[in-house]
Amino acid sequence: MREKLTEEKVFKDPVHHYIYVQDQTIWDLINTKEFQRLRRIRQLGTTYLTFHGAEHSRFSHSLGVYEITRRIISQFERNGYPDWPREERLVSLCAALLHDVGHGPFSHSLEEIFDTDHEVWTCNILLGDTDINAVLRQVSEDFPAKVAAVIQKTYPKPIVISLISSQMDADRMDYLLRDAYFTGVNYGTFDLERILRVLRPYQGKIVVKESGMHAVEHYLMSRYQMYWQIYFHPVTRSSEIILRQIFRRAQELYREGYTFGWMASPLEKLLNNTLSLHDYLKLDESLAQTAFSEWAEESDELLADLCGRFLNRRLYKYVTIDNPDETWLSEVADALLSAGLHPDYHMEIDYPFDLPYDVYRPDQKNGEKREKAPILLLDNEDRISEISVKSDIVRSITGLRQGQYHLYFPEESLQEKKAILSDRMIQLFRLNETKPTPM
Amino acid sequence: MREKLTEEKVFKDPVHHYIYVQDQTIWDLINTKEFQRLRRIRQLGTTYLTFHGAEHSRFSHSLGVYEITRRIISQFERNGYPDWPREERLVSLCAALLHDVGHGPFSHSLEEIFDTDHEVWTCNILLGDTDINAVLRQVSEDFPAKVAAVIQKTYPKPIVISLISSQMDADRMDYLLRDAYFTGVNYGTFDLERILRVLRPYQGKIVVKESGMHAVEHYLMSRYQMYWQIYFHPVTRSSEIILRQIFRRAQELYREGYTFGWMASPLEKLLNNTLSLHDYLKLDESLAQTAFSEWAEESDELLADLCGRFLNRRLYKYVTIDNPDETWLSEVADALLSAGLHPDYHMEIDYPFDLPYDVYRPDQKNGEKREKAPILLLDNEDRISEISVKSDIVRSITGLRQGQYHLYFPEESLQEKKAILSDRMIQLFRLNETKPTPM
Amino acid sequence: MREKLTEEKVFKDPVHHYIYVQDQTIWDLINTKEFQRLRRIRQLGTTYLTFHGAEHSRFSHSLGVYEITRRIISQFERNGYPDWPREERLVSLCAALLHDVGHGPFSHSLEEIFDTDHEVWTCNILLGDTDINAVLRQVSEDFPAKVAAVIQKTYPKPIVISLISSQMDADRMDYLLRDAYFTGVNYGTFDLERILRVLRPYQGKIVVKESGMHAVEHYLMSRYQMYWQIYFHPVTRSSEIILRQIFRRAQELYREGYTFGWMASPLEKLLNNTLSLHDYLKLDESLAQTAFSEWAEESDELLADLCGRFLNRRLYKYVTIDNPDETWLSEVADALLSAGLHPDYHMEIDYPFDLPYDVYRPDQKNGEKREKAPILLLDNEDRISEISVKSDIVRSITGLRQGQYHLYFPEESLQEKKAILSDRMIQLFRLNETKPTPM
Amino acid sequence: MREKLTEEKVFKDPVHHYIYVQDQTIWDLINTKEFQRLRRIRQLGTTYLTFHGAEHSRFSHSLGVYEITRRIISQFERNGYPDWPREERLVSLCAALLHDVGHGPFSHSLEEIFDTDHEVWTCNILLGDTDINAVLRQVSEDFPAKVAAVIQKTYPKPIVISLISSQMDADRMDYLLRDAYFTGVNYGTFDLERILRVLRPYQGKIVVKESGMHAVEHYLMSRYQMYWQIYFHPVTRSSEIILRQIFRRAQELYREGYTFGWMASPLEKLLNNTLSLHDYLKLDESLAQTAFSEWAEESDELLADLCGRFLNRRLYKYVTIDNPDETWLSEVADALLSAGLHPDYHMEIDYPFDLPYDVYRPDQKNGEKREKAPILLLDNEDRISEISVKSDIVRSITGLRQGQYHLYFPEESLQEKKAILSDRMIQLFRLNETKPTPM
Repeated sequence: MREKLTEEKVFKDPVHHYIYVQDQTIWDLINTKEFQRLRRIRQLGTTYLTFHGAEHSRFSHSLGVYEITRRIISQFERNGYPDWPREERLVSLCAALLHDVGHGPFSHSLEEIFDTDHEVWTCNILLGDTDINAVLRQVSEDFPAKVAAVIQKTYPKPIVISLISSQMDADRMDYLLRDAYFTGVNYGTFDLERILRVLRPYQGKIVVKESGMHAVEHYLMSRYQMYWQIYFHPVTRSSEIILRQIFRRAQELYREGYTFGWMASPLEKLLNNTLSLHDYLKLDESLAQTAFSEWAEESDELLADLCGRFLNRRLYKYVTIDNPDETWLSEVADALLSAGLHPDYHMEIDYPFDLPYDVYRPDQKNGEKREKAPILLLDNEDRISEISVKSDIVRSITGLRQGQYHLYFPEESLQEKKAILSDRMIQLFRLNETKPTPM
Repeated sequence: MREKLTEEKVFKDPVHHYIYVQDQTIWDLINTKEFQRLRRIRQLGTTYLTFHGAEHSRFSHSLGVYEITRRIISQFERNGYPDWPREERLVSLCAALLHDVGHGPFSHSLEEIFDTDHEVWTCNILLGDTDINAVLRQVSEDFPAKVAAVIQKTYPKPIVISLISSQMDADRMDYLLRDAYFTGVNYGTFDLERILRVLRPYQGKIVVKESGMHAVEHYLMSRYQMYWQIYFHPVTRSSEIILRQIFRRAQELYREGYTFGWMASPLEKLLNNTLSLHDYLKLDESLAQTAFSEWAEESDELLADLCGRFLNRRLYKYVTIDNPDETWLSEVADALLSAGLHPDYHMEIDYPFDLPYDVYRPDQKNGEKREKAPILLLDNEDRISEISVKSDIVRSITGLRQGQYHLYFPEESLQEKKAILSDRMIQLFRLNETKPTPM
Repeated sequence: MREKLTEEKVFKDPVHHYIYVQDQTIWDLINTKEFQRLRRIRQLGTTYLTFHGAEHSRFSHSLGVYEITRRIISQFERNGYPDWPREERLVSLCAALLHDVGHGPFSHSLEEIFDTDHEVWTCNILLGDTDINAVLRQVSEDFPAKVAAVIQKTYPKPIVISLISSQMDADRMDYLLRDAYFTGVNYGTFDLERILRVLRPYQGKIVVKESGMHAVEHYLMSRYQMYWQIYFHPVTRSSEIILRQIFRRAQELYREGYTFGWMASPLEKLLNNTLSLHDYLKLDESLAQTAFSEWAEESDELLADLCGRFLNRRLYKYVTIDNPDETWLSEVADALLSAGLHPDYHMEIDYPFDLPYDVYRPDQKNGEKREKAPILLLDNEDRISEISVKSDIVRSITGLRQGQYHLYFPEESLQEKKAILSDRMIQLFRLNETKPTPM
Repeated sequence: MREKLTEEKVFKDPVHHYIYVQDQTIWDLINTKEFQRLRRIRQLGTTYLTFHGAEHSRFSHSLGVYEITRRIISQFERNGYPDWPREERLVSLCAALLHDVGHGPFSHSLEEIFDTDHEVWTCNILLGDTDINAVLRQVSEDFPAKVAAVIQKTYPKPIVISLISSQMDADRMDYLLRDAYFTGVNYGTFDLERILRVLRPYQGKIVVKESGMHAVEHYLMSRYQMYWQIYFHPVTRSSEIILRQIFRRAQELYREGYTFGWMASPLEKLLNNTLSLHDYLKLDESLAQTAFSEWAEESDELLADLCGRFLNRRLYKYVTIDNPDETWLSEVADALLSAGLHPDYHMEIDYPFDLPYDVYRPDQKNGEKREKAPILLLDNEDRISEISVKSDIVRSITGLRQGQYHLYFPEESLQEKKAILSDRMIQLFRLNETKPTPM
């Protein structure tokens, strides 16, 4: 076991005011090159193209998750709750700090294209030949594996897992507050201090004192609002679509043997699926943006156009459509073809509910990959109930699925070919509306 | 003259809540590729290495300066003040929006090394073959030159210049509020709404109603605090020193004919002083960070070490010293040499007062390059006085120069060679203190 | 018609930053003694006994309602919307400012006991021999009646009424924000600026652009939270019960011919239902509290005890109960009698849904006394729909009625007589629990 | 010694979010009638007539001082600093909570007229026959005297005194933040969390780590601004003058044997200097305002006018004047007399520096009644220095005295008699200016 710092250190943080570091291990982890790399990866991917304040990094979010976890555990220790296993403090803090360390640039988009998984990379970083591994091993030889087990949700004590992965965990609590702060919206604010005060360790789980039910309702409503107003924002979706198309096109060209005017080694290995850990750690958003900047001058017009669109924020327009069927889709694709466009790259149907976010669904069945522990209330007589049993408002929003289908496409290109298109298509694409898409 | 938008557009902004766009010209300027590029340049350069929230871009700051200018002018128009030349509205708004468009990556540091000037690049962008120039020319042929004249402070109406360049201009007001918000400190907050309410156009100048004197005092005190606690922060200075050393070393190697393992065309042109406008626009912080990432694996150990330090935040340590003389300096340099270090790269004396920021000095003489219009109060009998004449507190902080000399050096390298160093040097470098440098 | 002020005046306001006064009439109304009297009446009645910050007055709320109305109208005028009747500006502002001017001390409680109606008093003040009437008549002879008609909801233009009385009016918007600010909870914050931006006058109504639907959802969720966490708070209810019992007892004693050790003329006239307008205007919360302070030393023990309880915050305890029937009620009353208490004064069943607040219910039928105009969305094709048709979340919370029955009683008195009570009653009153009631 | 609470209780507080109560003694003290009485006394006296949000009570401030003290001590205990005497915790908390319990209505004004002293009353309440005394005696027989000694600054351990009475004590820190919050200005905000973190107990004193110097500078600048913009605000001064004149006139009438139409027993005893503790505790701002309301209908015109002015906010106008001499004063008095006014009541010269507030003056000599412990910095080598030695900015504002003389008078009365007055007097009183006095 390693020592406590002789004097605690702090980071100034806009969301939590200060982040307190009290352990040498945490301090050393923060100073590793793998953790510092998170400064070069944005927390919200392409959202900054919709909300210009959202330029904050995964570095700051990771510190925030650590800090919330530290405050929860500190409250448990201060009150001497017997159901909290005090020996799990350091492994919990390390898992909180490191749970996102495997994220790559624009993770959600890239993982779809290249079928990688940031959680796997996180474990590679914890267990491989890295500075982080070296720091963790100073605690004990099996410590890296323990931290990895928490992140993989296989750790034998579920209470530790639930701190960073449940329906109301430190991860979600930080990102809702942080994303609200940096986008500038006030939908995501809730009373963190109150929630931390009503959490209790209880029989291997973390539960909420029933007197805190309204604060939890507020948290869930904030979350609901954040999903619809920030995370599912159609302009952000448009930028993600373009991002994916860039990488799809680059991979396609690579496979066809196209000679790129500019290529970087980690990117090439990404394209041909031979990424080593060393390469992966060089993949950050700086490199991705440098690539887009260079590829915007490639001879392949499609790739060049897509890169220019991303860099200069000339995003695809979207129109809301009804649930589309095959016939409809091929009709639209034909229209695009007739206008000289590539349906494979120049249209995409998006339904936000396919996103890796979810509203609160306590009744998820075990078929779901990422089932999260539900929120449990503890009443004065020590009875447990799932929150939607007690709360009308939670029950009423549980399972609401109000997504809409959107069709995305490059408006300017279609405008040029408007003469060719049928009236029906002109109306479908709303080409007669002059207003550009606002935020 | 171009039309107003049929419906105003907004950007959500954490500092000003909303940024309102009412003119087609402004909307089009924001959508140019040169303006979108500002998303890839941080407002505070390397400050994010000290305050991790400070990841905001010059894009958001530029929108903020535009918005404050818009609000000032809107107040002038609403009240029908006769001394405001209404025909100057659009040129003022464009100059506010574009005043920083020529900034490159980590401007303050790079300009020192390469002797470039972002203001010159701004004018090149306004007047050259760019999308911005094309949008401005839609207003009138001479409009680009008019906007440039405002930014160069040669515009014939000083009141327009003073909106974006004076001791209390839209530029400063935005950056103080914005930098405070994103770093998370509350030193920089002042009552913007109150200040905007007491500004008056008066005989070709912008003055402040005397009843607003206390609000201006508060603004000046906030500014004073921000300089000392954010802009002059020694940890930030340390990162800037390393950044400059990277570019100095790269330039040195380039001149020596060294073959770089990795080079990008705009960087090469930067190193050999042949940057075209097209190259310059490709120089952003993504490219700089990609270069550091690649150069961290160069065979030149000095360059590789400096780049690794920057990327992984292994900064130079600093100690406070008295005003150093030549003898003292060469003694320290000798000590570094004896420890196998390069004094040219491994030590630097810094005195924060050399920075391009300044506290309020109304009595600047015309020898100074960047004299800014002072803050003038207008009393009930329409008499004007410079604020430090009326305000004890402003007079008392005017001209305070409380900087300290700091010596920066790589602590770890010296620790390894401690055995070689004299006791005097060990004490000078404080090598016996074990505490790592906190924020 | 009266003139505009030569220079606008401001009040500093914590909620809206500044309140702007631009009309001589508004300025004069604020300076009347009837309006200044609102400083001596708290906005939230007895809520300060639960949330100690809630000491704000109806004066500040009235200014806030005026300011929100001013901003809405200013937006309508600035954009030149044809459906806004510009000549209604001043009557709207006056009605907004004065809509609560007839409130007496602890209105909701006293109105129940004495069957008075603050809205009637408001009209008396507008139309009677008052300074307010004099100021309004300077506009025109029929102006006081016009303002009164808006407040009575009989004004011929419904759009004017809906500004201050609808499901999303200036009154509610101000009190949600203001009550949240002064209690210190953050449940009541929503994006006022955004909502004001999406309001539109349309065919005699005020509607919301559909793009603002999420902001309205947020407003409705905030409102929902405020009702349950602030307005229906059981500790506040307890203090209101005691307040009502004080006045019931005083009235009872008065009718019995009891000689009060202390009485004030306006109170006496309240007790015997002979209040003149002059008397009513002297009834403020200072006078009520002075009465409680004096009556705490009355010889009637019941009155003295109730007053002491209110002043010194020795409130009734509450326990949650199931829907009580007659048998149950008389059983509890008997238990109280056996313990020497007065069931008439020492017990009360409360069901918060009887309160004069309501959650959003768009489908109220005309049987309801206080039907408010619902929230209407305006889509891009100028079609109108009630919000719960479009919004899943609003539909899901509409009509939720989750109130619980609470039984209130003086715990200490029962504790003393615990020996007499049956075990069933001891359990019912939870007399074996030692914890004092927290906030 | 009394027990800790089994579960901590909280109060929601807008300034500190939550106030935590962990001791039975503190909980019982809050529930005494003497402490609850503070709800009926405003923290800022008549300031609500200038800033309408400033309606907060001494009750909320007292809880705030307690909470800051609790946080400081908690930090000392958590870090195990040896120089903190742990046994002084409860006495410190009680003194913090109770330090203002002796305040009467509009204390600063009334104390001037009646030569009473709230600190004496505080001690009477602690030591007399009160509920507070009974609660304190449950700790130990000498405990009330110990708490009183801290408040009287005679307690043998100066470190305990300095927590609630020094240049940067819990009292000032709370009121600056609280008064800023409720007035709505942002001048008074500083980084409380940071300051609490850098406080250290050291050799019987509380000192500040030198690394926190800038945060202390910010605190002192905030304080400076609050004094000039809130506490010395001339409109507030005007209302205090009227308040004092009311009591001066009432006392004068009482001495002359005038028969009041309305009188209350505690007020009568105040006027004839025979207040018992019981009477004093009935003196609250409700009673004072009830008196003004009744006296506004007295037959003595002067008293009636003054009371009406206060209630209805028809305050005296002020003009700024140069340092006035005797000749000048009698000339102005003569002018008032000639206009039928009473110079004794209708004019007052005010110089804000006579107020019981002060800016930071470390060099106060022992002649001063209320010398406060200065702010001491502790450097890395455990050397102590007074802050103005190290901080240029503190030194520069130390001892600044920028007050202006103001002459207050009833403008309307003079306007009526304008014909009688000399041109010189008309100009002096600025009777030709039409603008009413803004905030």
